[in-house]
Amino acid sequence: MSAVESKQQASFRERTRLIIFEAETPAGKAFDVALLWCIGLSILVVMLETVKGLDAQYSKILLAFEWFFTVIFTIEYLLRIWCSRQPLKYITSFYGIVDLLSCLPAYVVLFFGASSAFGVVRALRLLRMFRILKMVNHVKGAEVILHGLVRSKEKITVFFFAILLMAVIAGTLMYYIEGRQADTQFTSIPRSVYYAIVSITTVGYGDITAQTELGRFLTTIMILTGYAVIAVPTGIVTSEMMKLQETDKTSDACPGCGVHGHLPDAKFCRRCGSSMNEGS
Amino acid sequence: MSAVESKQQASFRERTRLIIFEAETPAGKAFDVALLWCIGLSILVVMLETVKGLDAQYSKILLAFEWFFTVIFTIEYLLRIWCSRQPLKYITSFYGIVDLLSCLPAYVVLFFGASSAFGVVRALRLLRMFRILKMVNHVKGAEVILHGLVRSKEKITVFFFAILLMAVIAGTLMYYIEGRQADTQFTSIPRSVYYAIVSITTVGYGDITAQTELGRFLTTIMILTGYAVIAVPTGIVTSEMMKLQETDKTSDACPGCGVHGHLPDAKFCRRCGSSMNEGS
Amino acid sequence: MSAVESKQQASFRERTRLIIFEAETPAGKAFDVALLWCIGLSILVVMLETVKGLDAQYSKILLAFEWFFTVIFTIEYLLRIWCSRQPLKYITSFYGIVDLLSCLPAYVVLFFGASSAFGVVRALRLLRMFRILKMVNHVKGAEVILHGLVRSKEKITVFFFAILLMAVIAGTLMYYIEGRQADTQFTSIPRSVYYAIVSITTVGYGDITAQTELGRFLTTIMILTGYAVIAVPTGIVTSEMMKLQETDKTSDACPGCGVHGHLPDAKFCRRCGSSMNEGS
Amino acid sequence: MSAVESKQQASFRERTRLIIFEAETPAGKAFDVALLWCIGLSILVVMLETVKGLDAQYSKILLAFEWFFTVIFTIEYLLRIWCSRQPLKYITSFYGIVDLLSCLPAYVVLFFGASSAFGVVRALRLLRMFRILKMVNHVKGAEVILHGLVRSKEKITVFFFAILLMAVIAGTLMYYIEGRQADTQFTSIPRSVYYAIVSITTVGYGDITAQTELGRFLTTIMILTGYAVIAVPTGIVTSEMMKLQETDKTSDACPGCGVHGHLPDAKFCRRCGSSMNEGS
Repeated sequence: MSAVESKQQASFRERTRLIIFEAETPAGKAFDVALLWCIGLSILVVMLETVKGLDAQYSKILLAFEWFFTVIFTIEYLLRIWCSRQPLKYITSFYGIVDLLSCLPAYVVLFFGASSAFGVVRALRLLRMFRILKMVNHVKGAEVILHGLVRSKEKITVFFFAILLMAVIAGTLMYYIEGRQADTQFTSIPRSVYYAIVSITTVGYGDITAQTELGRFLTTIMILTGYAVIAVPTGIVTSEMMKLQETDKTSDACPGCGVHGHLPDAKFCRRCGSSMNEGS
Repeated sequence: MSAVESKQQASFRERTRLIIFEAETPAGKAFDVALLWCIGLSILVVMLETVKGLDAQYSKILLAFEWFFTVIFTIEYLLRIWCSRQPLKYITSFYGIVDLLSCLPAYVVLFFGASSAFGVVRALRLLRMFRILKMVNHVKGAEVILHGLVRSKEKITVFFFAILLMAVIAGTLMYYIEGRQADTQFTSIPRSVYYAIVSITTVGYGDITAQTELGRFLTTIMILTGYAVIAVPTGIVTSEMMKLQETDKTSDACPGCGVHGHLPDAKFCRRCGSSMNEGS
Repeated sequence: MSAVESKQQASFRERTRLIIFEAETPAGKAFDVALLWCIGLSILVVMLETVKGLDAQYSKILLAFEWFFTVIFTIEYLLRIWCSRQPLKYITSFYGIVDLLSCLPAYVVLFFGASSAFGVVRALRLLRMFRILKMVNHVKGAEVILHGLVRSKEKITVFFFAILLMAVIAGTLMYYIEGRQADTQFTSIPRSVYYAIVSITTVGYGDITAQTELGRFLTTIMILTGYAVIAVPTGIVTSEMMKLQETDKTSDACPGCGVHGHLPDAKFCRRCGSSMNEGS
Repeated sequence: MSAVESKQQASFRERTRLIIFEAETPAGKAFDVALLWCIGLSILVVMLETVKGLDAQYSKILLAFEWFFTVIFTIEYLLRIWCSRQPLKYITSFYGIVDLLSCLPAYVVLFFGASSAFGVVRALRLLRMFRILKMVNHVKGAEVILHGLVRSKEKITVFFFAILLMAVIAGTLMYYIEGRQADTQFTSIPRSVYYAIVSITTVGYGDITAQTELGRFLTTIMILTGYAVIAVPTGIVTSEMMKLQETDKTSDACPGCGVHGHLPDAKFCRRCGSSMNEGS
């Protein structure tokens, strides 16, 4: 192998690396999008395989799709090792292990047969979903939402403890009110707390419900009190989001008088009338 | 037919066209409102016909109403073809096809008898509901809501994917936790994902519920985590709506260039730099 | 009867009128509050009388309370007629008829016996609840909420029609998807529309649920789409409420420079430094 | 015992007091956190003891944990009496009684045997949860949420009465519509009001559901009307929270009088009228 050939190969490897690992070039972005579609469809295949009726009918098609995605992910995994600058670092990284684990299940089944642990092993492919998190930086809207959530993190934690406190108190009361009934569904405090949380968050499955008049009365009080508390996280997120947007709006200062808070399309300062574009 | 008669007829056709197709004139607006009432009532008739108890009792009255609306819609369809400037364009347009499809079912039943496909064909009349969308521009409140939704479109898409991601992960976990129970309702991953979405959005039908303590614990975590995420769309829509209103509030137009939407304390137009206070 | 006596009586009648009909004096306010408690407690009695278990046990106490409140309301009704300036106008007014109807039931039962229409007649007393509406102007918080609701009336109407439109479309689809099942709960379109509204508003009773995979899939889409729309009324009310509060904040202009938007406790203008209290 | 020893002991007692009663020192904060963990875990033990399946299996471990926490709480109670400046005042205070009641149950069971009142007595330990309320002042996020709730207290009360009024009216109507059915679940007005509240707050257990077409129609109206009203508490809390944050944002203190909370564009203090820009 001549030096030129080796250099060409290195260059080819580098170009492959840019496509597979980075998302700056158009080809790299296209690769990422194609990969996400493959991941999404392979997850759909894994999900459909657990459906009893469908499995018997379309099992061959699903098996074909499963092998198709397994081959694709195997090729992708080998390519990543080949073109990575530090293959060992990639293999031992979080995403490296996830990529390996998402290829293995099909081969395990092929060589060892469909064992009872079959389903759990196959579910490893779902780990690939975490790749979607990599896409977050490319999406503009996601950033705002994440910022809003991160900035209200502390308050949301407090809110969770308030809900838990309410649920434990209300659940314990419900247990002592309803637990004496003959055919009660409030058989333990944890189950009553589960009932309280399901009620306060307005989910209300109805698998556990109050049987006595007093229990119904307490449930009513609990729901209404919870309603005032539950309004809080929405308020928190909304006000954090508006603060973020306000900061966005005021991102440029006037070069003439330094006033902030211009509208996004402003060409002249609304205070001193000097041009906004001089500085930029 | 003399030229005058022909001209009179053309003028009559043009006047009819203004009433039927446009909503600028009082007569045109009245026609639109009357048409909407007819559509609404004919939809109610189609809906009531599917009620078993009512059908036997009032079937004759409902049949009379059905024919009444069919005749009205047929006349309206023929009038539209007659007075349209480009009849072919109308017939092949979306609303043209919808109008035809909403008249046909009754005639199909008359000539071919009530076949098994009867119900589905009759349901075509429901397509007429889309005519309501035409009214949107006439309603002031609708515009604000639509604007708010359209401007938060990107963020709402991200939010939907976040919910889906959460639901797939939580649903798969629930499937492996609850699926081993003898009389489990978590028979497949798609069903478990359906359970997760129904729980996270606080709908909580209760047709599928956790049977194990661990399943109930995971459900509780899922609901509470979902609650923080679910607060996001409200926050998004609210903040978008307030931004819209803020722009509305400062509705003074620049005396120089006529641009709207200045900040409340603006002294100079942000576009052309001319003084805002000259006019006032 | 001398003129003095007559005058004294007229004065006494006028004083009674001020207490019963107006709420400006302390005595009038106390009367209103006492009346509200009587109405609330009498409603509670009517409600408890329908409870099967309690009725047998405490029926005598409840009957005593019922007669107690009936006598009070009868005396109040006669007093109102006696001291009203225009007795006929009061008797034929909405509240006059409500007051009469809320006394009658007990006497009807006394003279004619507890007929089958007993319950319905007794429920007339619940009409008295509307008296609470009279109290609205005395409560400060109620005004803000009502203003917020009234100002967003138009948008909320549009929102209701959007929900209805979504529910009719989704309900009809569900009817044609689920209606073919042998033991389906989607027996008619109105019932399916009821299911759609219960789902979109996240109530989710679970009395009607999807049985097929396709039905569950459509339900999921419907819930998630509904979630974006359902965020709208909260956004509307919030932004209307904040506009109201903003107007409150900016209610005084500086007498020196005319700048608005001072904080409620401002004593000096934040722009020109002149005293804010000079004008007032 | 010499004076020095007595002084040393007094000093030791004072130091213990600072750790147990105050949270200013690092040791005092650590003690509070450790105590909270003990309370949390002992509550978990009390909750798990009511689970039937777990109790048989792990009852010995749970009993050991119960005694472990009982001993810890007893030592803590005695220490508090010993090092308190006014022991009697502590013993008769709310938290003193709560501390005593949370130790007693285990000893009661030891001496008198597990009576039928066993569970209720043991539940007294849950009262300790209220100690968490003491931590509120240490958490920054909690303050904002509490402020938001306290400031909207009046409006939330009005909102609760509006919900109750709606629920009583709708519940009574549902009782007279659905109550005539043979197998009705609307057996009394209080039960119907419970149904109305569960529906309006979008909990929707589904233990009581409408059986007639008319009942379903009224339920739909009730849910949709409730939706507009239910949007109100969120709006209230959000706008109160944003007002709080607005005041926070302009956190510069006046160099003259030190008053906080100026508007962003303030040039002069709104209280003393001195220039805001001198310091900066």
